[in-house]
Amino acid sequence: MEDEFLRWIYKRMSKFKPPLLVGVGDDCAVLGLKEKKIVVTTDAILEGVHFDFKASPEDVGYKSAAVSLSDIAAMGAKPVALFAASALTFKYGGKYARRMVEGIIEALEPFGAQLAGGDYTLWSHPVVIVTTAVGTVEKPLLRSGAKPNDLICVTGTLGGSILGKHLRFTPRVNEALYLSQNYKINAMMDISDGLSLDLSRMMEASKTGCVIYEERIPVSSAAVELAKKDGVSPLKHALSDGEDFELIFTLPKKEAERLLKDSRIETQVTVIGEVQRKKGIWIRRNNGIKERLKPEGYIHGKTVYKPLKE
Amino acid sequence: MEDEFLRWIYKRMSKFKPPLLVGVGDDCAVLGLKEKKIVVTTDAILEGVHFDFKASPEDVGYKSAAVSLSDIAAMGAKPVALFAASALTFKYGGKYARRMVEGIIEALEPFGAQLAGGDYTLWSHPVVIVTTAVGTVEKPLLRSGAKPNDLICVTGTLGGSILGKHLRFTPRVNEALYLSQNYKINAMMDISDGLSLDLSRMMEASKTGCVIYEERIPVSSAAVELAKKDGVSPLKHALSDGEDFELIFTLPKKEAERLLKDSRIETQVTVIGEVQRKKGIWIRRNNGIKERLKPEGYIHGKTVYKPLKE
Repeated sequence: MEDEFLRWIYKRMSKFKPPLLVGVGDDCAVLGLKEKKIVVTTDAILEGVHFDFKASPEDVGYKSAAVSLSDIAAMGAKPVALFAASALTFKYGGKYARRMVEGIIEALEPFGAQLAGGDYTLWSHPVVIVTTAVGTVEKPLLRSGAKPNDLICVTGTLGGSILGKHLRFTPRVNEALYLSQNYKINAMMDISDGLSLDLSRMMEASKTGCVIYEERIPVSSAAVELAKKDGVSPLKHALSDGEDFELIFTLPKKEAERLLKDSRIETQVTVIGEVQRKKGIWIRRNNGIKERLKPEGYIHGKTVYKPLKE
Repeated sequence: MEDEFLRWIYKRMSKFKPPLLVGVGDDCAVLGLKEKKIVVTTDAILEGVHFDFKASPEDVGYKSAAVSLSDIAAMGAKPVALFAASALTFKYGGKYARRMVEGIIEALEPFGAQLAGGDYTLWSHPVVIVTTAVGTVEKPLLRSGAKPNDLICVTGTLGGSILGKHLRFTPRVNEALYLSQNYKINAMMDISDGLSLDLSRMMEASKTGCVIYEERIPVSSAAVELAKKDGVSPLKHALSDGEDFELIFTLPKKEAERLLKDSRIETQVTVIGEVQRKKGIWIRRNNGIKERLKPEGYIHGKTVYKPLKE
């Protein structure tokens, strides 16, 4: 089974192109890069934690790649190559592996990134897939660059990703590249563990605080739908559900004004708040009252309520 | 537990140096490289497959990093950064994770490579650790470059790694760099699945065959020891045991002659055979008779006996 899969993947991956100089089949892949700065991220996706039996092998492959692409995007970088190491359950076998690889390629192709290598083992436990993505960048966008008076923006809508988006989302690669090339973005990251938690991490890294406006949070229809089922408010879902894989970024007010008029960006961008010197995450409620927001998010099955260093 | 570990690792990894420009803590690590070619490899290490309960967390971390370093070495590249994604069993927890990280760092430090990022999840299944190593290279050494009449060399001694070497081996990074800088090496790879199997892969990739000499195979003392226990011959262990993590390389005869006189290389190097046009792996027995050698190796718990495309 393993040999069969390896033969299949050698054939499937034999058409690689620059900057990939050596693809699957040697001890390492070789990349010839013009850019001097590269970004690298690695993410583990586990059966029973990040997906369940309802996810197809294609979904699993797609998600694993898209999660790493989202991290590449969050740096304002261009994804170039992806590496996938997997441990598959014996009974799933080679067909599952091939379908998973097709899902990976489906996630990579729109961005011209290539599957460049991997590792593959069978075992008797649940499926594990670890993707490592490599991208190139001129000026990396860090989460530590937010400045007081910057406006805070997010792409897309938030909350309720568990209803489906967490498996099939579009990593914001094109949006991030466009933003970094056309605007002065001071800080950027992706929302993987929930808006309020990830925002608190950005503010902490930037040694700033912020206020966000309740009425401006772009609540997704999935958050509304989920709220009907579980009685938690749609806003709370938008603030604290994980796996939105949207971008949060901050930029000077004038830049934000320019961005809001920019018709070339097709993805929804919403100004949700403002960076301030005063630490902590604050929310201005619809009634005008500002209150402290306890950062909440979803990390691998447990709700967490504090940023790392607080 | 998770937050505690993350706080610990942020502190442990906060002293990074160039070419690592951004280390643990952002969406991606950022590397600023002078070289234009990079090599990347990813490897999964699974509890119950690649190690068992007798391995300490430090052993597990060390092995996971060293396996990827060995792949970097096999390209004649210099390891720069390593990324580690792990799924740890709940009951093992943060202390296990910290000890594992210390093992990783122990493997990296002799080569000046840095732990640059990772991912960390707890689950109820056995431990998984996936390492991805990035290296820089001027002229990558491929497994496909062997030429007829090249001599075939291996570093170190072979066989019986299951007795301990598979957990604590020295990846041949320095040796490979020295060789690539001072000799015309036509092909190189590391031995991860067994000499005869990996050699067959090199010959297949190079569209050549080879003959090796029974009396020249550097049988390790561990192979001799293991043979006493299991009745399999020491030679057979040296030819087909996995996880030696030594280098196989081929070079022109004159270069090999020069290498054998080179006192600057401290690791044992043995000429074990010669590349030939005629396909297949042949062995010249001690009685002078040449016979075909069926490539055998050990891949993740099963003995395999055929190269991928045969």
